Amino acid sequence: MALVVIGGVAAGLSAAARARRLDAGLEIVVLEKGPVISYGACGLPYFVEGRIRDAGQLTVYSPEYFRKERRIDVRTGECVVSLSHPRREVALASGARVHYDRLVLAMGARCDTSGIAGAGQPHVFTLHTVDDAVRLRRFLGEKRPRRAVVVGGGYIGVEAADALRRNGLRVTLLEHSANLLAREDAGLTAAVRTQLEDHGVEVRCGVEVKAIEGDRVADVACEVVVISAGFKPNVELASEAGIALGPTGAIRTDDRMETSLRGIYAAGDCAEATHLVTGRPAYIPLGTTANKMGRVAGANAAGGRERFPGIVGTSIVGIFGMGFATTGLSVAQARAEGFRPVAARIRAKARPVYFGGRDTTVELVADGATHRLLGGSVIGEQGAAGRIDVIAAALHARLRVEDFEQLDLAYSPPFSPAWDPLLIAAQQLLKDL
Amino acid sequence: MALVVIGGVAAGLSAAARARRLDAGLEIVVLEKGPVISYGACGLPYFVEGRIRDAGQLTVYSPEYFRKERRIDVRTGECVVSLSHPRREVALASGARVHYDRLVLAMGARCDTSGIAGAGQPHVFTLHTVDDAVRLRRFLGEKRPRRAVVVGGGYIGVEAADALRRNGLRVTLLEHSANLLAREDAGLTAAVRTQLEDHGVEVRCGVEVKAIEGDRVADVACEVVVISAGFKPNVELASEAGIALGPTGAIRTDDRMETSLRGIYAAGDCAEATHLVTGRPAYIPLGTTANKMGRVAGANAAGGRERFPGIVGTSIVGIFGMGFATTGLSVAQARAEGFRPVAARIRAKARPVYFGGRDTTVELVADGATHRLLGGSVIGEQGAAGRIDVIAAALHARLRVEDFEQLDLAYSPPFSPAWDPLLIAAQQLLKDL
Repeated sequence: MALVVIGGVAAGLSAAARARRLDAGLEIVVLEKGPVISYGACGLPYFVEGRIRDAGQLTVYSPEYFRKERRIDVRTGECVVSLSHPRREVALASGARVHYDRLVLAMGARCDTSGIAGAGQPHVFTLHTVDDAVRLRRFLGEKRPRRAVVVGGGYIGVEAADALRRNGLRVTLLEHSANLLAREDAGLTAAVRTQLEDHGVEVRCGVEVKAIEGDRVADVACEVVVISAGFKPNVELASEAGIALGPTGAIRTDDRMETSLRGIYAAGDCAEATHLVTGRPAYIPLGTTANKMGRVAGANAAGGRERFPGIVGTSIVGIFGMGFATTGLSVAQARAEGFRPVAARIRAKARPVYFGGRDTTVELVADGATHRLLGGSVIGEQGAAGRIDVIAAALHARLRVEDFEQLDLAYSPPFSPAWDPLLIAAQQLLKDL
Repeated sequence: MALVVIGGVAAGLSAAARARRLDAGLEIVVLEKGPVISYGACGLPYFVEGRIRDAGQLTVYSPEYFRKERRIDVRTGECVVSLSHPRREVALASGARVHYDRLVLAMGARCDTSGIAGAGQPHVFTLHTVDDAVRLRRFLGEKRPRRAVVVGGGYIGVEAADALRRNGLRVTLLEHSANLLAREDAGLTAAVRTQLEDHGVEVRCGVEVKAIEGDRVADVACEVVVISAGFKPNVELASEAGIALGPTGAIRTDDRMETSLRGIYAAGDCAEATHLVTGRPAYIPLGTTANKMGRVAGANAAGGRERFPGIVGTSIVGIFGMGFATTGLSVAQARAEGFRPVAARIRAKARPVYFGGRDTTVELVADGATHRLLGGSVIGEQGAAGRIDVIAAALHARLRVEDFEQLDLAYSPPFSPAWDPLLIAAQQLLKDL
């Protein structure tokens, strides 16, 4: 039995490692088109910032590690150009063919800059691979640019803006939509904007960038540009092979991560997932989700029976020391999904003032008809990750606000106030429901 | 309609405030036997430490605030000596009687030192009221003791040990049982012991203190003693009035917080609560629980219909900067409750090393038969409160380990690793189940 995995980053390697653990005899080949595997894409902005000094720190495992410790044949620089399921083989750019019995597609996503003229210039970067980050960092050191434009106000965009600002550049962030962090939520957008502006980043929403003209982007002068927009799942190989895509445009799978072709699984940024709040497919590509999907895909490809139920859309980003965390649906998203959302937003100390407590903002969204929690956000310098995770757990468990209000959360002055901000928000929401 | 509340700290004032909010016309009287109300008992160790410099910071609201802003008649120094439900009145030590239509019992608990000879000496303290803390702090300043003994290794005991050590004293902690933090859990006890010893506190378990003989406690020389043992609910007033106590010895209530006598409610440290993991009554007196119980008691006493479902036993304590958090049942407790507990304990970084990540220890306990999560603990300097709260939410929702393993938790390098320690623990536990 041969398992072939296409893609050697989060989902692909999670799949390969999990398959090995379940089946010691399986032949496992991982084909990665890039030069390095197993890198933490989420760490790239911190390499640009300079916090991570050695690009080697961005990679967790080497191909040698997988070969020796796991008996997994990891091949870098191998680009799969087509796959034939009837013949159970993939064709490489080199012309070679690799046979498989089971296949895991973990081709990830890409930053598609084809809609932006001039994106190929040497001072224009994306921030998607280790190579991207190394080249950008080198450019900053060698060319000493003073003004930067970041195109795209999603997670990588704001992290790039933060990293460039900390390197002393003047930074302008341009976002096509009216929202930041890819979430239709005016309150969140306003808070992110304020945090960026307070730290010297100029923010302009509603600006579509179609061209980069030398040292100008949409009338903003700059010597370096980072594009963090046009994020697209790599699905061409799959769709050409007849594998069904879902309504999001990413590869559709069942809860075993199996695609429409038996024996072919998909995981990570090329695949969609079930959103557990809406029950519908969603495309929210994140490293943690990729890891979980990969594990399940690998287990099932190796003959196991595991399920990946789905996601609730939890994420967090740090912007100049402040955490911006969201999970589930915003009010606008909930309304678009047919719920009757009611929201409450409160501001409270994250812990007692004598333990340095700072303000944190908690928003909870619930359905007016059923009182079921639908989503929330937490903004603050202290405890934002822990608090959003509690809301995420509540979404998984489909808790109602009445249940959430009674959660027995830990209290002690070094850590939290007697009434946790989460519970204060739930009390407020119950008044409004 | 007159509502009388006996006790003016967490539960009592929560009840009074909530009752006022629901019924603007209600006559509300709060009778507090002590000189101050509305104090944060959990802050007392930090006043002893010196972090809180002004004892006034320990109290949240004054009687004047309640009188003026809430029209609640809060009377301090009023000790209720008996209650007659047939006559609907309580008798005060002064001889006066106060009529009620509804009554909330929030008498709290006490630190019963009657079993320790010599506990009344001037160098022996408890740490239960603001007055206790002020007297201890003054004693430390005036007498400059160099050696302290703390009797009792529960939460207040270890916090007192921490506070005294930070004041430069040599500290010995004596605990009657084999456990620390009131939890039968050898791993937790060992970790707490190590943390205390690493910071210069001598720990002796299995030592019962029956007498304090001048400057010696169980052969340990000292000039100051803090007793944090013999914690007992104040139930005498209730039981003399014919109100039923539960199996824990605290006042029994239904989920509306009503006692066995109609119209009399109980809340806070004098009452027991349903443990949602076992479904049985438990006595785990904590400030957060008192607040929640008080709110529900007050709402129902004012004619509302609210429920307090119960607790899962979540708590956290900081010891020299390290968080020790527990929730639900330990293995020993689960076994005693008739479960077939299986546990997994892992150690992982709380976040990436390049963001200063330190080790955190997570233990999860599940039932071998149903895979339902029963409890857990988190120990670490980073994120312990947030992570224990996620486990607590999972216990409320009766999640199975398989569900918990798939939680969509927030990830970004400043906050957490790609595989959260909670999920690593769940993966480990699933292997062992």
